[in-house]
Amino acid sequence: MEKVAWIALLLDFYGQLLTERQQKFLDLYYGDDLSLGEIAEFFNVSRQAVYDTLKRAENLLFEYEDKLKLVAKFLIMRKKLAEAVNLLEESEAGREDENVIQARAILCDLVEMVIRQ
Amino acid sequence: MEKVAWIALLLDFYGQLLTERQQKFLDLYYGDDLSLGEIAEFFNVSRQAVYDTLKRAENLLFEYEDKLKLVAKFLIMRKKLAEAVNLLEESEAGREDENVIQARAILCDLVEMVIRQ
Repeated sequence: MEKVAWIALLLDFYGQLLTERQQKFLDLYYGDDLSLGEIAEFFNVSRQAVYDTLKRAENLLFEYEDKLKLVAKFLIMRKKLAEAVNLLEESEAGREDENVIQARAILCDLVEMVIRQ
Repeated sequence: MEKVAWIALLLDFYGQLLTERQQKFLDLYYGDDLSLGEIAEFFNVSRQAVYDTLKRAENLLFEYEDKLKLVAKFLIMRKKLAEAVNLLEESEAGREDENVIQARAILCDLVEMVIRQ
């Protein structure tokens, strides 16, 4: 996975364990694609201070995932859920069957829930 | 949910963020049902020290869940997965349909995965 997408995912899962400033800097740098200089100017701090905050915050996110591996588990779940949904969508018998239709709807909700994570 | 089961679940999710000693004490107290006195004797520390470590560790687990809410999300996912599996199991058409059978197998694996969390 691309670094930007990976950081965004880690931030979704573990962001609340960071300080507000760390979250904000990561959001601006990775989410809004601002440069170090732009963030520095906006917060009236040095470029080096922005860099240090970003590095520290990234390392914390990597550390949380390294210890908990929850994002990795969610990604596996999402993949398996999508597989199950596809199978049901392609099922001939399932197209007319109320149970299969309901099950598929539940799974589609779940995929959404996992993705929004 | 009963406190013991809740602590066990939180420990499964966030245990790696605690110190080894905190994890060990929680395991012994909640998992193996040892008393404060027994743990104190075993580690050659005061009963009060065991109590303080347990309280601190519990509060950390509660704090992680309060911030991240990942256990709550997993519980919802588990409930919805079980619903989908039940629907497929009770489906008349699905009993003979290869796609539905495969999808059910994937979902059963997923339920296992979520429970082992």
